[in-house]
Amino acid sequence: MSIAARLAELDIVLPPPMRTGGLPFQLVRTHGNRALVAGHVPLDGEGRMAKPLGKVGADVSAEQGYAAARLCALAMLASLQAELGSLDRVERWLRVFGMVNAAPEFNALPGVINGCSELLIDVFGESVGGHARSAIGVAELPFGAPVEIEAEVAIRD
Amino acid sequence: MSIAARLAELDIVLPPPMRTGGLPFQLVRTHGNRALVAGHVPLDGEGRMAKPLGKVGADVSAEQGYAAARLCALAMLASLQAELGSLDRVERWLRVFGMVNAAPEFNALPGVINGCSELLIDVFGESVGGHARSAIGVAELPFGAPVEIEAEVAIRD
Amino acid sequence: MSIAARLAELDIVLPPPMRTGGLPFQLVRTHGNRALVAGHVPLDGEGRMAKPLGKVGADVSAEQGYAAARLCALAMLASLQAELGSLDRVERWLRVFGMVNAAPEFNALPGVINGCSELLIDVFGESVGGHARSAIGVAELPFGAPVEIEAEVAIRD
Repeated sequence: MSIAARLAELDIVLPPPMRTGGLPFQLVRTHGNRALVAGHVPLDGEGRMAKPLGKVGADVSAEQGYAAARLCALAMLASLQAELGSLDRVERWLRVFGMVNAAPEFNALPGVINGCSELLIDVFGESVGGHARSAIGVAELPFGAPVEIEAEVAIRD
Repeated sequence: MSIAARLAELDIVLPPPMRTGGLPFQLVRTHGNRALVAGHVPLDGEGRMAKPLGKVGADVSAEQGYAAARLCALAMLASLQAELGSLDRVERWLRVFGMVNAAPEFNALPGVINGCSELLIDVFGESVGGHARSAIGVAELPFGAPVEIEAEVAIRD
Repeated sequence: MSIAARLAELDIVLPPPMRTGGLPFQLVRTHGNRALVAGHVPLDGEGRMAKPLGKVGADVSAEQGYAAARLCALAMLASLQAELGSLDRVERWLRVFGMVNAAPEFNALPGVINGCSELLIDVFGESVGGHARSAIGVAELPFGAPVEIEAEVAIRD
């Protein structure tokens, strides 16, 4: 099954690619069989930062943080699709680096980033979608995003 | 000398691989001649998070932080051994990304992450064990870990 | 035009490579056609940490943070030149990971890291100098650095 078909099966609609507003970097930088995926924030259906904003553990609940991490994964998929033409060119996920905008003393960070990891495994299966991962709490994220996730993917021609 | 013999010479016993409790990621993700090592926390002899927990510079002293970073390195070695079968398959260390759960105003971060870097060089020698490195202070780490370290290693067949 | 000529055209003088004071890591770790660039802080003309130090959004203004990120980029170029012999061996920038020592509630992080991204594109052009990027706010950086930036570059022989 193609990834597009699998997304449809899961009733998942990807957002438009993140609006970087002329920022001087690329959402996906490919080189050989590697795709380096820039840090992605959660997006709404129009490619803007999804709400709620703020710190997970204070303004944003752990459950909302999980949902935000899932939206980060969808944003990465949207960028990869735009860059690669088709998500079927993803050979294997390699690395997920999950950053939570953490309120003081909120340290249940893995449970938040699971929102990304579980989506990737749901869509690509364990063998392709598996990945090494770090989950950390950072002091601030761009414009109050609750979660930002960077990744690396092996791609085929 | 094999790495196993070198570890014995240094009286180092590796912990069992980190217990991820069903978390949806891999401790080591290999692809071609690369091994991407997930963020590792300090482990005790049973593969559980080693104490003390908390913020380096407050709950945890700089010296205890150094010891924790060394335990992170041993945890990475345990995961690599489990994944690769033998640490002799490590061709070269490439990157170490060291994250300290830093108390406010504690910025002697390189001295903490040295606990990892010096262990790697002790075990593998300067040529194989050397690496590019960042040492940063983060707001929170999973479940109060004082240090978390992610890495990349070049491997041979 | 060579990168050295382009730097001269832009009136840019690189600092001496960062003084790591015997720290157990390399500023640039090469492997095959990859160069992994350690986290670099802003340097002055003598290879020491450039002032001002402290938190962007409090001790350091956003404009000074931008300038600091630009100095991080120059420090990376100095390290790459020392390691590679010539910056013409840089085939493509791949990844920039920008860490801001952020004061509470300072979240205009992309604007700070633009100081690095725009310099790279000025010097190398969009095709070579482009990169995937993350911009995050961390709790502390080594010895009060306002910005630290890590990177990966594809190199040619």
